[in-house]
Amino acid sequence: MSFTLEQLDARLGERAKASPEHSYTAKLLARGVEKCAQKLGEEATEAVIAGVTNNSPELTKEAGDVLYHLLVLLRAADVPLSAVMAELESRTGQSGLAEKAARNKD
Amino acid sequence: MSFTLEQLDARLGERAKASPEHSYTAKLLARGVEKCAQKLGEEATEAVIAGVTNNSPELTKEAGDVLYHLLVLLRAADVPLSAVMAELESRTGQSGLAEKAARNKD
Amino acid sequence: MSFTLEQLDARLGERAKASPEHSYTAKLLARGVEKCAQKLGEEATEAVIAGVTNNSPELTKEAGDVLYHLLVLLRAADVPLSAVMAELESRTGQSGLAEKAARNKD
Amino acid sequence: MSFTLEQLDARLGERAKASPEHSYTAKLLARGVEKCAQKLGEEATEAVIAGVTNNSPELTKEAGDVLYHLLVLLRAADVPLSAVMAELESRTGQSGLAEKAARNKD
Repeated sequence: MSFTLEQLDARLGERAKASPEHSYTAKLLARGVEKCAQKLGEEATEAVIAGVTNNSPELTKEAGDVLYHLLVLLRAADVPLSAVMAELESRTGQSGLAEKAARNKD
Repeated sequence: MSFTLEQLDARLGERAKASPEHSYTAKLLARGVEKCAQKLGEEATEAVIAGVTNNSPELTKEAGDVLYHLLVLLRAADVPLSAVMAELESRTGQSGLAEKAARNKD
Repeated sequence: MSFTLEQLDARLGERAKASPEHSYTAKLLARGVEKCAQKLGEEATEAVIAGVTNNSPELTKEAGDVLYHLLVLLRAADVPLSAVMAELESRTGQSGLAEKAARNKD
Repeated sequence: MSFTLEQLDARLGERAKASPEHSYTAKLLARGVEKCAQKLGEEATEAVIAGVTNNSPELTKEAGDVLYHLLVLLRAADVPLSAVMAELESRTGQSGLAEKAARNKD
């Protein structure tokens, strides 16, 4: 079975306990929620660029960076990943038509 | 056991087969990779704002939107989620010091 | 002489006095600084996409949107454009070498 | 009279002629349009954060960075600033009601 987002989040939880000198994750968290949010924004821009330029190897890496930095931001803000996944389960469990009505914002 | 990113991706794969009139996911994919990338950028900005303003309920929702739109972008670009997770497993499986050396970019 | 950012800012100042029903600028400002910031983030993503896909007509429009929404955000935050321009004048008035030292962050 | 965006653009045009070792502007341009676009995305995220956290001194600097990197991106993409300003003049020269109809996208 493949590596999951929950397993990644568990690894981050371990890293977060280390000193900022020994873990990039701990260093980011020590710098606070603004720095963590900034990194998410940067990596999202890089994923956008990799996507629209059809650079698949780069998109693979940048998508990983987006997931990593999203988990760091959630941790900095004390929002559990399970709450995010529960919301997604509820939202996408609707039928296609209900989904369309709920999300039709653009 | 809680809902996983892989399960979300499987749901998107089902939705992608529907007609764009009946599924928001199919509609996004029909509009192409640029539109999918743009949505990721928008939702990342909203997650950044929710994070730095300490709005946890909003961050829960926006983090879900980031995950959803990242999966849609990967699908539009034909990059499998498993490739992203394999890269993350390899990268974060290193020791803290190795991780620091590998990622020490800012 | 061509239209300037200062003239655009003056127009926005006039529009800001109108009712939100009659002016998009007034409507944005009434929704607050978070909404104004969100719009800047969205338009920056669109300019990024237009740039990397070599879509010059689209970049012309999106760059205009970035300038417009940056001015709206400055107004929402009570930061005068003149302060931004004074900082830019000071920063770029340095010699190339000094500039390099001051900005060499990536 | 205060420093203008056109004057900043003229300075960038001078810097662009220098070698990448001596000018940050020349270095960015030498790295290509993707790098220039990425920097715009990064700085926009930082301006968004400064705005929503009511950090006026930081917003003053970050707004300057957005303007600088937008001009660099336009230059990398061979889009003249005058074309952007002409579009903005035309678009904002409309009456409030026409403006609202033209821009009412969200």
